[in-house]
Amino acid sequence: MSDTRFDVLTIGNAIVDIIARAEDDFLVERGIVRGAMNLIDAARAEELYAAMGPALEASGGSAANTAAGVASLGGRAAYFGKVAADPLGEVFAHDMRASGVHFGSKPLAAPPPTARSMIFVTPDGERSMNTYLGACVELGPEDIEAEVVAGAAVTYFEGYLWDPPRAKEAIRLAASIAHRHRRQFSMTLSDPFCVDRYRDEFLELMRTGTVDLVFANESELKSLYQTASFDSALDAIRGDCATAVVTRSEKGCVVVTSKETFAVPAYPVSRIVDTTGAGDQFAAGYLYGITNGRDAAASARIGAFAAARVIEQVGPRVMEPLKPMIDAAGL
Amino acid sequence: MSDTRFDVLTIGNAIVDIIARAEDDFLVERGIVRGAMNLIDAARAEELYAAMGPALEASGGSAANTAAGVASLGGRAAYFGKVAADPLGEVFAHDMRASGVHFGSKPLAAPPPTARSMIFVTPDGERSMNTYLGACVELGPEDIEAEVVAGAAVTYFEGYLWDPPRAKEAIRLAASIAHRHRRQFSMTLSDPFCVDRYRDEFLELMRTGTVDLVFANESELKSLYQTASFDSALDAIRGDCATAVVTRSEKGCVVVTSKETFAVPAYPVSRIVDTTGAGDQFAAGYLYGITNGRDAAASARIGAFAAARVIEQVGPRVMEPLKPMIDAAGL
Repeated sequence: MSDTRFDVLTIGNAIVDIIARAEDDFLVERGIVRGAMNLIDAARAEELYAAMGPALEASGGSAANTAAGVASLGGRAAYFGKVAADPLGEVFAHDMRASGVHFGSKPLAAPPPTARSMIFVTPDGERSMNTYLGACVELGPEDIEAEVVAGAAVTYFEGYLWDPPRAKEAIRLAASIAHRHRRQFSMTLSDPFCVDRYRDEFLELMRTGTVDLVFANESELKSLYQTASFDSALDAIRGDCATAVVTRSEKGCVVVTSKETFAVPAYPVSRIVDTTGAGDQFAAGYLYGITNGRDAAASARIGAFAAARVIEQVGPRVMEPLKPMIDAAGL
Repeated sequence: MSDTRFDVLTIGNAIVDIIARAEDDFLVERGIVRGAMNLIDAARAEELYAAMGPALEASGGSAANTAAGVASLGGRAAYFGKVAADPLGEVFAHDMRASGVHFGSKPLAAPPPTARSMIFVTPDGERSMNTYLGACVELGPEDIEAEVVAGAAVTYFEGYLWDPPRAKEAIRLAASIAHRHRRQFSMTLSDPFCVDRYRDEFLELMRTGTVDLVFANESELKSLYQTASFDSALDAIRGDCATAVVTRSEKGCVVVTSKETFAVPAYPVSRIVDTTGAGDQFAAGYLYGITNGRDAAASARIGAFAAARVIEQVGPRVMEPLKPMIDAAGL
């Protein structure tokens, strides 16, 4: 394996989050699936925004949050994702570059506009997302910068990319480049309903070795194998993928390979404010760890630490740099 | 005094905040006056944004924050301010209306675009603002909805309005309407450097009785009378204005009228995260109080409570509704 230019490249839907508090009743009245990513069209976006309380805006997008997290931890990160040439697109690009992430994707001459996700945070800190994909539908193989993929130790993408029409072609191209350069290729299952939409394709990505490292939370894993049993789902994924890392909220995470299975506890959280970005920051910590000389257990601890920090605040990325924090925590 | 339609109408520069963490060195290197509102032009805005770290966006503007605070406390609030017909202007208008504030100001067909303030929050929680006024420069007497002023128990404006060219004409018109309907007219001195720019005009507003109720913090008060002595400044304002409310950060506030002077302590703060909006939320609490049957001391306690809540979080407005909080606190 030759020298790397990046530790982690991530690919995903480039989204600006619009975040507001809401009561549980609001979700029921508006038909929003709680805790999930609800895909919406432009008309529904307008309707929900009109009903939404006062909000904050922050750059988001699952894989983009992970890239920003890797950079915040001190890693070398890159990102591919499609924004439009509009004010939200400028905000998104600013935040990526200001985080220290290489972001060279060409913005789309709008319309459609930059994607946005209206995120309703209920009093328990759970987030329910309503995503209008906008410009993300235009991501395709032409957005894959081959030399960035070739130079990244790990390329990681979000399962959400199976929603826009051509992103899967981009991912297959990136996988072939990555493997040709003996790099790791990784994905997150993203969301249990997303798994439900693309179960067979996700399993095929794992079983063909296109993906070497899978991130999932408990409900995504159960959705993947259509089982209520965590243990049987864990057994199943052991045979399907070289490494799986399964997060379980306050129960920590489980790392599964063909040779071993071990658990790592969660970090204590002072107050659950907003769970947005917890999985993304866990992945950031894990990917930073394995590309910076840590073993899987130490990497999972960094992931757990980063996840704990992001749920103590509003927004999907930790505002203060994570590197001094993990140094202080001895990670 | 006839029935009111609104408790509080506020008038100010309609601004979207762009908020990021920064070290103290950054302020020095970039020539940003710490703790102050620095007025900037479009070129400087671009330069600072390029140098700024990853940011959050939130609707701001001093008097707009106060209107949102009054509504959050359960009061009837209205606002006048100029945005452009652009995405940031839509965000600003959404947040005002979603807060329950009457906001009917006609947006400007851009350019110039909606105003933005880049706010750098240093590790001590102090905010240093860099404001590009954009569409705010177009606020004028034509934006004064006479029937809203006539129906508001108190009309309140920010001293910052002396920066754009025609807003002072709008304020003088609003004052004449308010007084004709025997309503109170109030202002905040906004910022010590703003006071320095418009000292004589602000004193004239007070001494002619155009303004009945003045809000100031300690440094603004000292700037107004060009003295280092808090006590002599307090003596001076007693003769210049019917009521002055002077905030002193962790030392609480002092209410001054011709008849009495008394202090109200600050509320404890669990952690100072970002002081943006503290003065605005204090004013919201005080104005809500005096227009909802509380005496000056009880009103100042509500103001102190609201200020304490906003500095515990990032952003200029409290994300959760304040009314249940003051009810629970017995205010």
